[in-house]
Amino acid sequence: MWTVKGVGLGVVAFSLSLELIGWLLRRLRAERPRNEVLFFPSELACVEHLYTLPASASAAPSAAPSHSCLCSLPHGVETSFSRFLRHLMSASSSLDLCVFAFSNMDLSRAVLVLHSRGVTVRVLSDKDYIAITGSQIGVLRKAGICVRSNRNSVHMHHKFAVVDGRLLLTGSLNWTLNAVQNNMENILITEEPDLVRPFIKEFGRLWEHSDPVRRQKPAARVDAGTQD
Amino acid sequence: MWTVKGVGLGVVAFSLSLELIGWLLRRLRAERPRNEVLFFPSELACVEHLYTLPASASAAPSAAPSHSCLCSLPHGVETSFSRFLRHLMSASSSLDLCVFAFSNMDLSRAVLVLHSRGVTVRVLSDKDYIAITGSQIGVLRKAGICVRSNRNSVHMHHKFAVVDGRLLLTGSLNWTLNAVQNNMENILITEEPDLVRPFIKEFGRLWEHSDPVRRQKPAARVDAGTQD
Repeated sequence: MWTVKGVGLGVVAFSLSLELIGWLLRRLRAERPRNEVLFFPSELACVEHLYTLPASASAAPSAAPSHSCLCSLPHGVETSFSRFLRHLMSASSSLDLCVFAFSNMDLSRAVLVLHSRGVTVRVLSDKDYIAITGSQIGVLRKAGICVRSNRNSVHMHHKFAVVDGRLLLTGSLNWTLNAVQNNMENILITEEPDLVRPFIKEFGRLWEHSDPVRRQKPAARVDAGTQD
Repeated sequence: MWTVKGVGLGVVAFSLSLELIGWLLRRLRAERPRNEVLFFPSELACVEHLYTLPASASAAPSAAPSHSCLCSLPHGVETSFSRFLRHLMSASSSLDLCVFAFSNMDLSRAVLVLHSRGVTVRVLSDKDYIAITGSQIGVLRKAGICVRSNRNSVHMHHKFAVVDGRLLLTGSLNWTLNAVQNNMENILITEEPDLVRPFIKEFGRLWEHSDPVRRQKPAARVDAGTQD
């Protein structure tokens, strides 16, 4: 009786151990956070199909590009810029964007498309760069996207985006045509929580700090005659 | 007899499974690559002690700061800049630096100290920025550090460093005093191989591409009367 129980216990323990090992191996291999690095300048290629792909398919490298566009650019070619745009267009709930210079019309169109799909877009940009000719910040504001800028005289020099609170896109690349097509630049893309979390926290801090209501408060206090 | 063998086999298999589970758990937890994010502007603090710490101790957060410096800056305070410098000074064999603007004298001193310790330093910088007043590139060149710049008219806009071929420091921060003390900037630090490897490869590509010998080759060919 006891030997039967012993063998049974051994078999159960062995099976459980195998299950646990399988789970741990899956975590070690298959479920590693996505990491990718893109370098620029990017080759030119048609990205028209990326604006119409559903969010769930946009980030998948295997998503077949559409060849229906009749523009003169190469079709069906994956470039650094198309990879970047693909990750951006994968947003399904939120896009937090913190970028010094934003004049690239392809990227502006991407943000507008996401906004029209109901994605919550928040944009933080440099207060000096916002006023420069070619800046797309005014276009985003006119479309109803919430834009804030730094209050102080220093440069808001970040160039990062957080997609759906899980995917970080950051690097040296400003969101300009020159940066994408001419400069030597990099964008690092990661889902690694240790790297994504600090950027989410910093975006929240800067967003609160650049709240126009907060900006007006000191003036209101003076008007009311308070000194604190 | 068979039941004893069965129980014995079960016990051995269970013990081995436990060992394997322990090893997998250790890989999942303890051996995760180092990840860190720093935000700027950095507070001011004395970093004098970081230039004299041995390479093996420099990156350890627990390395106690020396308070022997008599400067007026706060001592014993860890800041974004001191963390950045600590990682940089941890180089023991090589430092590959690819940076658009380099005028920060504290960082220049760090690179010079590493060079004097025998660390192989390679610096890639933007050809237009090198000539600007305050650039530290000339100082590095005079000390015998190998510096190259891009051959073409576009901007080399990267801001990354690879320490000992294992640790990547990259972000929006140019190596200037303004970036460190005034701007809103970020530096992402990682040992994640999927992220470090592409930067090592790209540095190698850019380094080869900016080789002055390669630059002179077309002229030499013409002098020699060859057309290939």
